[in-house]
Amino acid sequence: MAEFEFQQKKVYYESYGSGEPILILNGIMMSTKSWGPFIENFSHNNRLILVDFFDQGQSARMTWAYDHGIQRALTGALLDHLGIENVNICGISYGAEVGLGFAVKHPERVRRLVLFNGAARTAPLLADIGHAWNEAAKLEGGLAYYLAAIPVIYSDAYYERQKDWMDKRKELLVPYFANPEVKERLIRLTNSSENFNVADELSRLDMPVLVVSAENDYLIPLREQETLIRGIKDVHHVVLPDCGHASIYEKPLLFCALTLGFINAAQTGFAL
Amino acid sequence: MAEFEFQQKKVYYESYGSGEPILILNGIMMSTKSWGPFIENFSHNNRLILVDFFDQGQSARMTWAYDHGIQRALTGALLDHLGIENVNICGISYGAEVGLGFAVKHPERVRRLVLFNGAARTAPLLADIGHAWNEAAKLEGGLAYYLAAIPVIYSDAYYERQKDWMDKRKELLVPYFANPEVKERLIRLTNSSENFNVADELSRLDMPVLVVSAENDYLIPLREQETLIRGIKDVHHVVLPDCGHASIYEKPLLFCALTLGFINAAQTGFAL
Amino acid sequence: MAEFEFQQKKVYYESYGSGEPILILNGIMMSTKSWGPFIENFSHNNRLILVDFFDQGQSARMTWAYDHGIQRALTGALLDHLGIENVNICGISYGAEVGLGFAVKHPERVRRLVLFNGAARTAPLLADIGHAWNEAAKLEGGLAYYLAAIPVIYSDAYYERQKDWMDKRKELLVPYFANPEVKERLIRLTNSSENFNVADELSRLDMPVLVVSAENDYLIPLREQETLIRGIKDVHHVVLPDCGHASIYEKPLLFCALTLGFINAAQTGFAL
Amino acid sequence: MAEFEFQQKKVYYESYGSGEPILILNGIMMSTKSWGPFIENFSHNNRLILVDFFDQGQSARMTWAYDHGIQRALTGALLDHLGIENVNICGISYGAEVGLGFAVKHPERVRRLVLFNGAARTAPLLADIGHAWNEAAKLEGGLAYYLAAIPVIYSDAYYERQKDWMDKRKELLVPYFANPEVKERLIRLTNSSENFNVADELSRLDMPVLVVSAENDYLIPLREQETLIRGIKDVHHVVLPDCGHASIYEKPLLFCALTLGFINAAQTGFAL
Repeated sequence: MAEFEFQQKKVYYESYGSGEPILILNGIMMSTKSWGPFIENFSHNNRLILVDFFDQGQSARMTWAYDHGIQRALTGALLDHLGIENVNICGISYGAEVGLGFAVKHPERVRRLVLFNGAARTAPLLADIGHAWNEAAKLEGGLAYYLAAIPVIYSDAYYERQKDWMDKRKELLVPYFANPEVKERLIRLTNSSENFNVADELSRLDMPVLVVSAENDYLIPLREQETLIRGIKDVHHVVLPDCGHASIYEKPLLFCALTLGFINAAQTGFAL
Repeated sequence: MAEFEFQQKKVYYESYGSGEPILILNGIMMSTKSWGPFIENFSHNNRLILVDFFDQGQSARMTWAYDHGIQRALTGALLDHLGIENVNICGISYGAEVGLGFAVKHPERVRRLVLFNGAARTAPLLADIGHAWNEAAKLEGGLAYYLAAIPVIYSDAYYERQKDWMDKRKELLVPYFANPEVKERLIRLTNSSENFNVADELSRLDMPVLVVSAENDYLIPLREQETLIRGIKDVHHVVLPDCGHASIYEKPLLFCALTLGFINAAQTGFAL
Repeated sequence: MAEFEFQQKKVYYESYGSGEPILILNGIMMSTKSWGPFIENFSHNNRLILVDFFDQGQSARMTWAYDHGIQRALTGALLDHLGIENVNICGISYGAEVGLGFAVKHPERVRRLVLFNGAARTAPLLADIGHAWNEAAKLEGGLAYYLAAIPVIYSDAYYERQKDWMDKRKELLVPYFANPEVKERLIRLTNSSENFNVADELSRLDMPVLVVSAENDYLIPLREQETLIRGIKDVHHVVLPDCGHASIYEKPLLFCALTLGFINAAQTGFAL
Repeated sequence: MAEFEFQQKKVYYESYGSGEPILILNGIMMSTKSWGPFIENFSHNNRLILVDFFDQGQSARMTWAYDHGIQRALTGALLDHLGIENVNICGISYGAEVGLGFAVKHPERVRRLVLFNGAARTAPLLADIGHAWNEAAKLEGGLAYYLAAIPVIYSDAYYERQKDWMDKRKELLVPYFANPEVKERLIRLTNSSENFNVADELSRLDMPVLVVSAENDYLIPLREQETLIRGIKDVHHVVLPDCGHASIYEKPLLFCALTLGFINAAQTGFAL
């Protein structure tokens, strides 16, 4: 819907409604297109801003290796472009980590922060899971990449219960992943997380932060989330039982309720 | 602020704001007075309705033993009095159980249901914890009742972190519990839950239900909540880690975010 | 079966079989008599040593307030009396804490340590639960004390499943707790834990330590056990799901298997 | 050390010591060779029996697809060959499932059963993880298979803490997995689990069964273990916190303690 140039590269974004602004930062395999069914809900009382990171959706493709720094810079540039001083950020997985990194570097620009299935660093096990995806990308066709990257992000309960939905997704995703250009983008995005680590900078965060963990999230196990819980001063923690890494797919109503509820609720407490 | 007669007994309630209505049902030791700091937040986009159950706050005292039935009837009478067909209910502990019982009997009158630290029945262990409170009430003064009933409802982490707050509360509550009339009311309220059990009627619920469990809730352990999770068709489950039975005191911002978020969010899902 | 004098006070103990010695330290309401059904099992390949702490079973009654120090001293005196340099200790709750305190002060005398439902300190919440028990002891008869102290130590699942067993226990315990001398002893034992805290000395432990936690242990919640897990170098941790504080009653076969298995197994690991 | 023919195919096994017999059934990537460091410990008071399944270690290679039935038959044939009526079985992952299947079909031949990281069926998600391994096997060399199959079986804590050990294992395993014959065997073993499901036959088990679950086991999440817990009459359940699927590697002392303790402890309980 809209775009601007940052460092000579196109940044694609969308903006809906008005009110306290909410910027959603995508997970690695998502894009602005993923959010269609949520737009009405999120723009009812708020201004909703969606954006594609570099190598996502309709933003520019990269031609060299990079790290989260470029996506954080894109985030800041978007706020500048929109003339927004201070925004609420809701990040999912990769987007949670870019958002967390952005908030750590620029705490004054983030009013409230919601982190779904994110961590303060890429742990060695997660790095090697990423390497496994990159290896699978070497095989022709999209099946190997699909099998390496997709089942692992769901809880086994959802995977079984939603078999029809998963099968339809497989029909869409296997041909999508068969496209070498897509795999190259995903490899670059995956590699951009390899050295992510802001665990020692969490004390810089002074805004309320909602950490949403999923009980069956294998990519970001609860141990990693503990670092967030201990390191962030004004932290609020919720666990989604019976839910895997892709919590927004498994629990869409809770995603809306938690994000809108946390961003719009006034801070309060019981009087004595 | 307002009252009406039901079965010749006074029912005290308060109503604030307008919009999709939210009826809050109190925990056993709470009253309409507990909610002062939340009124602005909850009445911003919604109509907030507070009420004292019989034997609570400013509603009538009972003079005989009763069960949840009378409180459910009071709830229905309040909706009739206000001319509300269909309401969102947020219940806390005792109030969650009255609300759940009301929704099971009158599903058509409940749009969405939020249950904080409630169960579908009073388990034998919880019944005996109630008996322990009633025994402690026999000692003169309020200390024994305070020690029997209060520490057990907090997580040990909160109890330690908020020592000053707990000490101030103790100063208020020990003299309050020393009042024989107060103890008699609490005994009647406690006993009214003894035979509560709607576990076999949960399939009657067809509205979205948010179940909020606390990891360190000893009174309503997760096993009891499992009955809710398995029995309710459109159930959404969230666990608050590092939190005891009195979750609304330990996590007030999450209480607001979850309740307002869940009641006001549109139902949605990811398209394929 | 046997006794000796320590500080002019009688210490009662029992010893069975031969082999690598195992000293069992009782929970607060237990005594040597509790272990009858376990003797054959534990003395088959090991020397089993049972002992009553002061104010327990057949050891001397105290006439003044004390702390864990006197029970640790009793433990050391028993080993001296038996001429045992180095023993395996298995402690339950109160006994786990005395055993942990003893091991911290005298690591050279403990070969392996097994801690069922113990912590490194008495947290403020647990202290107040003890105060509630002491208040309940003021009421005549044993019912109030029974209701304050007993339900809380079981998981709700066990409490319901074993209703007949619980009812029989109630028949035995209510008259027992009605005895003022018994209540005085229990009050002294309870108070002796009030200031227990060895959290900062855990690094002195160099023996293998097995920490057994129960998922539904309200008295010693998992948060307190975390201190043990983080502080002890050679720690091995097991969680018993669906189990309360009185884990040895709820899971007797696992109690035997874990204790005998851990004490008698050789330390090993997978070669490359 | 010893072998016999079953259906014209070689079965390789080892036997050590005497006493109550323990048969260990290997995980999918293990063999009799894995157990060297445990032999002394396990044969001290027991007879230890190790065996290679078909397509494992020194037993015969298969030339066609098969399911668990053939490995169960091998297990029965081994007991016949050794003249053992009744054995204790300790199975790990794949071996737990073959052992569970064997016990369900022949309960009279199993005295006690210990299941590490096993389930009653292969859930759809686990089946697709297996498919991902099989896809990775198509790439030349052993790196893709290593990355697909190995990181996923450890907890992230262990993976990080034991980086040197993991690196050494990688140096051994990558060339091992590069061998096409090895990959073919692993593919056949993986596929043999695809249709495993004894969930509806668990009530046939009448022996004591120890179920050991690991908190961070992604391949066999706790939900699948619940089926075992609910379905087996005489079940005993232990959870290993901070531990992944390869629990025997992460917690070798607990593996020994639990297995030897459970198999050798007498059944007992507290008298009233």
